[in-house]
Amino acid sequence: MAKANVSLGGRDILDLDSLSIEEYEMILQTAAEMKKIMKRDIKKVPSLRGKSIINLFYEPSTRTRTSFELAGKYLGADVVNITTASSSVVKGECLRDTILTVQSMACDAIVMRHPIEGAAAYAAEVADPVIINAGDGAHAHPSQGLLDMFTIREQGKDLKGLKMAILGDVLYSRVARTNIAAWTKMGADVHVAGPMTLLPHDIESLGVTVHKRVEDAIEGADVIDVLRIQLERQKKGLFPSPREYARIFGLNEKRLALAKPDVTVLHPGPMNRGLEISWEVGYCDNAAIRDEVQNGVAVRMALLFLTLTGGKQIENID
Amino acid sequence: MAKANVSLGGRDILDLDSLSIEEYEMILQTAAEMKKIMKRDIKKVPSLRGKSIINLFYEPSTRTRTSFELAGKYLGADVVNITTASSSVVKGECLRDTILTVQSMACDAIVMRHPIEGAAAYAAEVADPVIINAGDGAHAHPSQGLLDMFTIREQGKDLKGLKMAILGDVLYSRVARTNIAAWTKMGADVHVAGPMTLLPHDIESLGVTVHKRVEDAIEGADVIDVLRIQLERQKKGLFPSPREYARIFGLNEKRLALAKPDVTVLHPGPMNRGLEISWEVGYCDNAAIRDEVQNGVAVRMALLFLTLTGGKQIENID
Amino acid sequence: MAKANVSLGGRDILDLDSLSIEEYEMILQTAAEMKKIMKRDIKKVPSLRGKSIINLFYEPSTRTRTSFELAGKYLGADVVNITTASSSVVKGECLRDTILTVQSMACDAIVMRHPIEGAAAYAAEVADPVIINAGDGAHAHPSQGLLDMFTIREQGKDLKGLKMAILGDVLYSRVARTNIAAWTKMGADVHVAGPMTLLPHDIESLGVTVHKRVEDAIEGADVIDVLRIQLERQKKGLFPSPREYARIFGLNEKRLALAKPDVTVLHPGPMNRGLEISWEVGYCDNAAIRDEVQNGVAVRMALLFLTLTGGKQIENID
Repeated sequence: MAKANVSLGGRDILDLDSLSIEEYEMILQTAAEMKKIMKRDIKKVPSLRGKSIINLFYEPSTRTRTSFELAGKYLGADVVNITTASSSVVKGECLRDTILTVQSMACDAIVMRHPIEGAAAYAAEVADPVIINAGDGAHAHPSQGLLDMFTIREQGKDLKGLKMAILGDVLYSRVARTNIAAWTKMGADVHVAGPMTLLPHDIESLGVTVHKRVEDAIEGADVIDVLRIQLERQKKGLFPSPREYARIFGLNEKRLALAKPDVTVLHPGPMNRGLEISWEVGYCDNAAIRDEVQNGVAVRMALLFLTLTGGKQIENID
Repeated sequence: MAKANVSLGGRDILDLDSLSIEEYEMILQTAAEMKKIMKRDIKKVPSLRGKSIINLFYEPSTRTRTSFELAGKYLGADVVNITTASSSVVKGECLRDTILTVQSMACDAIVMRHPIEGAAAYAAEVADPVIINAGDGAHAHPSQGLLDMFTIREQGKDLKGLKMAILGDVLYSRVARTNIAAWTKMGADVHVAGPMTLLPHDIESLGVTVHKRVEDAIEGADVIDVLRIQLERQKKGLFPSPREYARIFGLNEKRLALAKPDVTVLHPGPMNRGLEISWEVGYCDNAAIRDEVQNGVAVRMALLFLTLTGGKQIENID
Repeated sequence: MAKANVSLGGRDILDLDSLSIEEYEMILQTAAEMKKIMKRDIKKVPSLRGKSIINLFYEPSTRTRTSFELAGKYLGADVVNITTASSSVVKGECLRDTILTVQSMACDAIVMRHPIEGAAAYAAEVADPVIINAGDGAHAHPSQGLLDMFTIREQGKDLKGLKMAILGDVLYSRVARTNIAAWTKMGADVHVAGPMTLLPHDIESLGVTVHKRVEDAIEGADVIDVLRIQLERQKKGLFPSPREYARIFGLNEKRLALAKPDVTVLHPGPMNRGLEISWEVGYCDNAAIRDEVQNGVAVRMALLFLTLTGGKQIENID
């Protein structure tokens, strides 16, 4: 473990811009240790025993919520879910009051998903517990960015100088924004393609190359990140029809062949197979989608561990 | 414990047809041990510590979901609930992808309820974790069948040669289909009665005797299994009205008197009292309905224990 | 600890009328010990290990449900949530059957919220596990009453002889009814003000003084308990409009100045800021609203501990 002079003890994890490359490194190395724990016969360690984590989800989510819940439990923490479906604290109460209420229950970390950009940063301002942003509107989803980075490196790839293609709905995607921030910081060459109606107007200011044709983004790519299409965008006229979308922008085998042979295909899930990604590509050997899920638990274990213990007990884990 | 040469380690529990009588025996004997644990002052044992179980419920359920959740927790496992109410993984994602996603989170067992027959078997094909079918459409509900078997034996009854009456909506009932499979295999004499519109066309091929009048099924019965009427069937014209249903098919005291004096009355719950079962019969001494619930937890502990440990640690429990 | 000759072992906690002052004392002293545990780095103690608690909530709730869930987990118990949102046991099943079903799963305590007055008392009659009423209609919410008492005493105030003002919707408020019962029993001087349409007709029989103007209730008060306004009452014509309500009955800084300078402001939450309480008052130094939340967990730990262990293990905790 490169303990170095960084510590994430007590830090809020709001986005990837506010973490240094050294901190990425620390998280990814810790996640590698956590992945070993996940493969043990007995997956439970006492590192976070006596800590309580609240999953505060203002939007429905299964993948991320379950992943954080398991991550916390594998580390021995108590995890309690508050979701808008079952929630009254949320109704008519301002976010500040809800966050302070949760804090008063002696919780150590709040894992928070909210439809509004900046909600997690606001929560971090008002509250003492560690805030981990599990997605705030179209802004950021840092644990997703970190699990993607982990997955890419696990494939033996160093981000520096790689050609990364991000396909699809960049405008509404916190995953896209998060990965663009991290990948450009790491020195990758990031290319973007999708319907013009689903690209931010200022996208080039993010340091990426924009293409009209997905083929140009894919050509020679080391990594392709396929974004999930949200079908309500179609109702809003932002793209013609799912079938047209698949024909023009979907990642299929023919397009995949334009990338490097060992290209890594990412997708944050859940996949709309047959829409933004074909059935074949979703199951092909280049697809690292199941790895992303597994690494997601490991990365979230690392985040909870590092923020709640400052990494002090890493020796006890191994 | 008859350890014998059977082991359920790593086995999926999909229906009762695919389990042998020797395996029934092993499960029921293990459940008897588990019931002792449930009666302890401290109900927690470490047998499944470090194992994670995901309750993946595509249909609302309280009884079965809670029962599996408690069963897992009493054995020291971590249990996480995914229900369609709070779930996005489920929306628009194919079952295969959802199952593989859950598997990638390092879960050891998936307890699964799904509205479509065969869904659990499909999940078992694609996934490595143990799949326990907690009900797939009108097909099977093996833990319910096993808890009924446990309850009948607890009353000192051996299934072989007993007269079993199953009353009501057999067509849409996974409980009926499960118990018919198990009871005929165990050599019981199974009789069925209910509205003709709620009986499968090929029901006699299952090895049961069909009656038009419930009285004929009940006459001299050792066990009566009253199925829950789902009121939406009435809207579809499958029976005239709840009041008529109660009058013609409901189990009341007068009809109960036709059975053996020590008849055991079963109902999978929740009961529609006053409809398929009268208030009096639901609370009478012959009703073993609360035993079914209690035995349900014990049987589910046994299933989780045997599939996740192969029964190797049974000595540690006692 | 004043162990004295009282014990709450096995007792149902249904309302504050049925607890003696000596029992209040015991609970509050135990809660003080529990609050120390909440402030520890490792908040988990094994006092209720092997006990199972079911949160059975027939009404949506986050604050109370989460508070009891954390309370149980901090004490090492297993906690399972059953909420009507995800529940089928509840649909069409009579309360008696649901309670008996939950009991049969070997649970030790049922924490229960129900829209009908007396539901918890009924559950206590039919079931063996400890029943803790977490709110039954407009009747009682004993843990809220106890946490308010704890909060008041923490401010160095003894209830005897204090002027207490309760403002707002007393008619539909279980919090009001609970605090009136406890505070009059403790010898406080309880004053009530609110729209006449939201006061019970027989309110003076409860031993309180009723005022038409909130100012008269607030004047010289030691404690002000602001009740949450439920906006559906407005639709029913029980008060003119939220703006009018705020103008005539809301607690704002000007009105607060009529009370004692060290007045304690309580609110059961979630607050409708700008309606029954102004933004400023909600955040002022007199507001003890976050203390109430924190003390709520401590009081619920005390209730679960005392009812499930009889207080026998208190030495192990410290």
